[in-house]
Amino acid sequence: MKKFLDENFLLHNKTAQKLYHDYAGPMPIIDYHCHLSPREIAEDRIFENISQAWLNGDHYKWRAMRINGTDEKFITGNATDEEKFLKWAETVPYTLRNPLYHWTHLELQRYFGVPDILSRKSAKKIYASCSEKLNSPGFSVRNLLKKMKVEMVCTTDDPTDSLEHHQQLEQEKFEIPILPAFRPDAAINVDDPGMFNHYLSKLEKVSNIAISSFNNYISALKKRHDYFALNGCSVSDHGLEEIYAEEHTDAEVKNIFIKIRSGKKLEPLEIKKFKSAMLITFAEWDHEKNWVQQFHLGALRNNNSRMLQKLGPDTGWDSVGDFVQGRQLAKFLDTLDKENKLAKTILYNLNPADNELMATMIGNFCDGSVAGKIQWGAAWWFLDQKEGMTKQINALSNMGLLSRFIGMLTDSRSFLSYPRHEYFRRILCNIFGEEMENGEMPDDMDWTGQLIQDICFNNAKMYFNWQHTF
Amino acid sequence: MKKFLDENFLLHNKTAQKLYHDYAGPMPIIDYHCHLSPREIAEDRIFENISQAWLNGDHYKWRAMRINGTDEKFITGNATDEEKFLKWAETVPYTLRNPLYHWTHLELQRYFGVPDILSRKSAKKIYASCSEKLNSPGFSVRNLLKKMKVEMVCTTDDPTDSLEHHQQLEQEKFEIPILPAFRPDAAINVDDPGMFNHYLSKLEKVSNIAISSFNNYISALKKRHDYFALNGCSVSDHGLEEIYAEEHTDAEVKNIFIKIRSGKKLEPLEIKKFKSAMLITFAEWDHEKNWVQQFHLGALRNNNSRMLQKLGPDTGWDSVGDFVQGRQLAKFLDTLDKENKLAKTILYNLNPADNELMATMIGNFCDGSVAGKIQWGAAWWFLDQKEGMTKQINALSNMGLLSRFIGMLTDSRSFLSYPRHEYFRRILCNIFGEEMENGEMPDDMDWTGQLIQDICFNNAKMYFNWQHTF
Amino acid sequence: MKKFLDENFLLHNKTAQKLYHDYAGPMPIIDYHCHLSPREIAEDRIFENISQAWLNGDHYKWRAMRINGTDEKFITGNATDEEKFLKWAETVPYTLRNPLYHWTHLELQRYFGVPDILSRKSAKKIYASCSEKLNSPGFSVRNLLKKMKVEMVCTTDDPTDSLEHHQQLEQEKFEIPILPAFRPDAAINVDDPGMFNHYLSKLEKVSNIAISSFNNYISALKKRHDYFALNGCSVSDHGLEEIYAEEHTDAEVKNIFIKIRSGKKLEPLEIKKFKSAMLITFAEWDHEKNWVQQFHLGALRNNNSRMLQKLGPDTGWDSVGDFVQGRQLAKFLDTLDKENKLAKTILYNLNPADNELMATMIGNFCDGSVAGKIQWGAAWWFLDQKEGMTKQINALSNMGLLSRFIGMLTDSRSFLSYPRHEYFRRILCNIFGEEMENGEMPDDMDWTGQLIQDICFNNAKMYFNWQHTF
Repeated sequence: MKKFLDENFLLHNKTAQKLYHDYAGPMPIIDYHCHLSPREIAEDRIFENISQAWLNGDHYKWRAMRINGTDEKFITGNATDEEKFLKWAETVPYTLRNPLYHWTHLELQRYFGVPDILSRKSAKKIYASCSEKLNSPGFSVRNLLKKMKVEMVCTTDDPTDSLEHHQQLEQEKFEIPILPAFRPDAAINVDDPGMFNHYLSKLEKVSNIAISSFNNYISALKKRHDYFALNGCSVSDHGLEEIYAEEHTDAEVKNIFIKIRSGKKLEPLEIKKFKSAMLITFAEWDHEKNWVQQFHLGALRNNNSRMLQKLGPDTGWDSVGDFVQGRQLAKFLDTLDKENKLAKTILYNLNPADNELMATMIGNFCDGSVAGKIQWGAAWWFLDQKEGMTKQINALSNMGLLSRFIGMLTDSRSFLSYPRHEYFRRILCNIFGEEMENGEMPDDMDWTGQLIQDICFNNAKMYFNWQHTF
Repeated sequence: MKKFLDENFLLHNKTAQKLYHDYAGPMPIIDYHCHLSPREIAEDRIFENISQAWLNGDHYKWRAMRINGTDEKFITGNATDEEKFLKWAETVPYTLRNPLYHWTHLELQRYFGVPDILSRKSAKKIYASCSEKLNSPGFSVRNLLKKMKVEMVCTTDDPTDSLEHHQQLEQEKFEIPILPAFRPDAAINVDDPGMFNHYLSKLEKVSNIAISSFNNYISALKKRHDYFALNGCSVSDHGLEEIYAEEHTDAEVKNIFIKIRSGKKLEPLEIKKFKSAMLITFAEWDHEKNWVQQFHLGALRNNNSRMLQKLGPDTGWDSVGDFVQGRQLAKFLDTLDKENKLAKTILYNLNPADNELMATMIGNFCDGSVAGKIQWGAAWWFLDQKEGMTKQINALSNMGLLSRFIGMLTDSRSFLSYPRHEYFRRILCNIFGEEMENGEMPDDMDWTGQLIQDICFNNAKMYFNWQHTF
Repeated sequence: MKKFLDENFLLHNKTAQKLYHDYAGPMPIIDYHCHLSPREIAEDRIFENISQAWLNGDHYKWRAMRINGTDEKFITGNATDEEKFLKWAETVPYTLRNPLYHWTHLELQRYFGVPDILSRKSAKKIYASCSEKLNSPGFSVRNLLKKMKVEMVCTTDDPTDSLEHHQQLEQEKFEIPILPAFRPDAAINVDDPGMFNHYLSKLEKVSNIAISSFNNYISALKKRHDYFALNGCSVSDHGLEEIYAEEHTDAEVKNIFIKIRSGKKLEPLEIKKFKSAMLITFAEWDHEKNWVQQFHLGALRNNNSRMLQKLGPDTGWDSVGDFVQGRQLAKFLDTLDKENKLAKTILYNLNPADNELMATMIGNFCDGSVAGKIQWGAAWWFLDQKEGMTKQINALSNMGLLSRFIGMLTDSRSFLSYPRHEYFRRILCNIFGEEMENGEMPDDMDWTGQLIQDICFNNAKMYFNWQHTF
């Protein structure tokens, strides 16, 4: 009986252990996509207790608690932080086989040195000891990043963001570059005229451009894109159900803009045309500036309208969707590629039924100009677990070049999520180790170790076009 | 070389063996969804021979025989029972790796103590010995249920059913509650005006309500829903390609009803609106009565029209379909949830490509009111095999709480199918055992054993709202 | 540490080794679907060097090189054969875990006795030694086929092909029958009027029928179908995104033909109707002649329009598509079956998300007339790797009869691809071996060995209706 979560956790043979301990484990971390708060890093926040760092904003845990029958009071309600922690602790034993069970105990071990299993029984002691540690300068958020050997972080920011916190960190010369990413979801989302026009007001203010026409609109956004670039940004991101690649003319798009600007609801086809036009525009800007563009595809979001109204978006009511992805995705990429305007691109899918589609799609636009130009992103969100990662790694291996994969990211809102990189690396090493041992791969530790280090760190470092050195 | 189908069948390590033999194996069975005949239980049928119990109505075996090149005469035709058995026996060795191979030999062992492999060679002897046993009072259908430690059975019944057999069993105080489930597929299916109006005639008779308007129709169905409740029913079920959640008004639905009542064929959109209205209505009734509602989604049925005409539906000509499920399913559940009318719900999918969609959809409507309020049902029909179960268990683990899963059911027409529960339990224990042994789970036999007993029995017992005690 | 690619490659237990070495390995090969050049066999081509045999036309390798950042000059450009080889050799170590890595080294071992790992370092030596061997009569393409124990080959041919090379081989009584297959993709593809009319010109010439009406068109094609039959053809094939089964009338189809014949672009619905009519027509001819028909479904082809223009189709810019397949496929097969015009049929899918759909669809039209009448084809193209094959084998096992599977084919353009059969056989034997050893299958070597030999060779030999003896 192997001990739970010992130093060879997930490493089921000697070769895997060697690959992890000698090659993968020591590599630092590039977190090229996450949802950490730049403000908290700028302020170098110190958490009062572990609930604030661990439970606030973590809708993965919230979902598990709800499924387990926990009252919302103890999740997002007015219970105390300690009460919330106790309810989470009660839930943990019921999460056995869910990635939360592994993550929880990895995080307790790695950040706090706590080897115990979290449960109702151990909860009070763990709450006290972890909170005490967290509530000390050595556990400020900047120190949490350093503790995990994070070498750079890329946050996710709306075009209307001031980026003041990124600027502060840059001025302070904080040793870990904290760079923004341009995520214009709100600028594309024309489903609700009220929300869209509200967004335009914010954009008018921050860009100092009055927006009465589509041209004004594009100018204002372009100004922000430039502003982001000036502030170290070289990555964009989009969260979409699917790529839109509907045929449209400039005149159509201008009229659609006038219609929604006047507060009128758009027809479904108009929405598609508008989104298609915007996606192409952003992609062209990304190409001009040599940015990397990311697309997170396939989530069906905010399905519970009652809770959306109460708690807002991103609070744990989302699904894996079954959208048709192939033809539009190919058309979008081809439209850019044939004009030689296709930037480096990372595609993420949420439905694993689309894995093979994604694994093969990226190959259609790798034209030899650079290794791994189009990437299939790491297993994301619901797929960010052993089986999800394994399936992604296998499909990418079978239909592309795993060796050129830029690897793992956290995609997290929490400063305590960095052991997800360790988790990914152990799974990766176990896969290679097993195949080396059973003769499906040559016994070439140098080359295999090199590939693993590339996937864990070097490929990402080479792939992005950051001007920061680190 | 491990012996085929010995006591540690499917249990590939010591921990799995302990989990199965000490925890899972001894639990009784709740069969909360099956297609057993209430009449046969009421009559306490004794089969003349094993063909009657094993081959009649078993379209899984029929398909295998046809694929193997067996003439229909020996499947559903006028060959003798023994001839049919011999043809089935000839087919069995060709079913190696199909679940039928495991089920066949499990059933021979468990019910009849026959350890032999069924083949042309062994067929006559097995036919004789099993038929002799079956044709004795100790093997009456009630005794078959007791032999398998079945504690309750939920059948599947049309709203027009008299439920006389359930009533008889209730009056006789048969120790195993045999409860009806309300399955109004025929009441929703308005694709064929002739069939629908024929169904209305039956409904008029049994409800004693003349049906000339939509309101009459609803009254008649409601009367049956109430009648089912009076007869111990607290579960509904629907067999659908996909959930329908088309916008519609009362006036539209009333007009659609008048149109089809007059024998006219409906337009596709009218069909969708009508079905959408009916699904919401049934769901509201289920919520009012605190029933559990089930949806079996994704089968493409009766694809062979030549054989449909000859043999009728449910005779083995069905497929896994590829319907788009996500958006409509979310909309349907949300429509109910936002009015606080969402009953406990179990969703079953037939296409495993939808597994992750299902595993995440259920979490959107678990609001903390009760543990595991929305369930993703056990692997069903074509998926009811080792790989199908494993995939369902893994996706549920990764994206939800396996610990709150209500587990296995037979979904069978045969009294000899109960070893499917054993099959599921062995697979479940093997998964847990392997992860305990390799350190992916703590070595906590008490807690893990408890979870397994919950999944095998306790969760289902708690989940349903049966008034019967057992 | 097991040695890479030794004699027990992929065979992870004694039983698997015995099954492979005693049963599967010795069987000859029937390659019932490939893209080998009949001209090269007729000419008994001797390659100048290994690049000509290995890299020319192999878009699998091209994709890998492009993803790895290789300039097109070294792929399809004007670099020398040796330069291209060196670039391929540089890429090989980066293909670790891609099937190309296994295939490459299997092919070096099996054809050339080279046990080395191909890399930049070993490239020159391997290029020289393999090229020297290849450039000798013992390695002519006919001898390559014999070396691999190929017993028959079925090529893929357009209806306008003269079949002169097949005729020459027949006249020479070359010991391996090289038979044509009828693949009328160009005759169905009415998306581009220019291309279609260009095709009609070729068809007019070869059929000696002037084509001004749909009836002429059908007559010309029928003449070619008959001609193919006279030349030993008994297999057809179609490469389609999806099956078309749109309702249509004769008059509609005739008018659609007149429209496109006059050079006008068709509406999407007209295209579907026309394709639907053609598919039924071809299927009826196949049934009349007792041919086997094949459908390769689900590829999204030529996604990179820039490279399509430069290099033409089939040059490595294709994807796994996500088309809706179920309902149309069922309708198409049923339309034929209900008139008793359904020929033996093999369905191949490119998206593994459709695996279970395919595995169950075939069972709907197996009517007992012959074992395995409708087949689900072996894992194809992007799926032609260990995981893809394993998934296909498992889904077919779970939902059908693996025992009746006609097994592997190369689908290759290369004379060096025959070890793919060995690869498939090892994977198959390993699956069976593991389950025999762990007690999920009886320890019956005779029966299991027989099934494996059937899948590897006998089933295919029985299934097709070739008039050649071999």
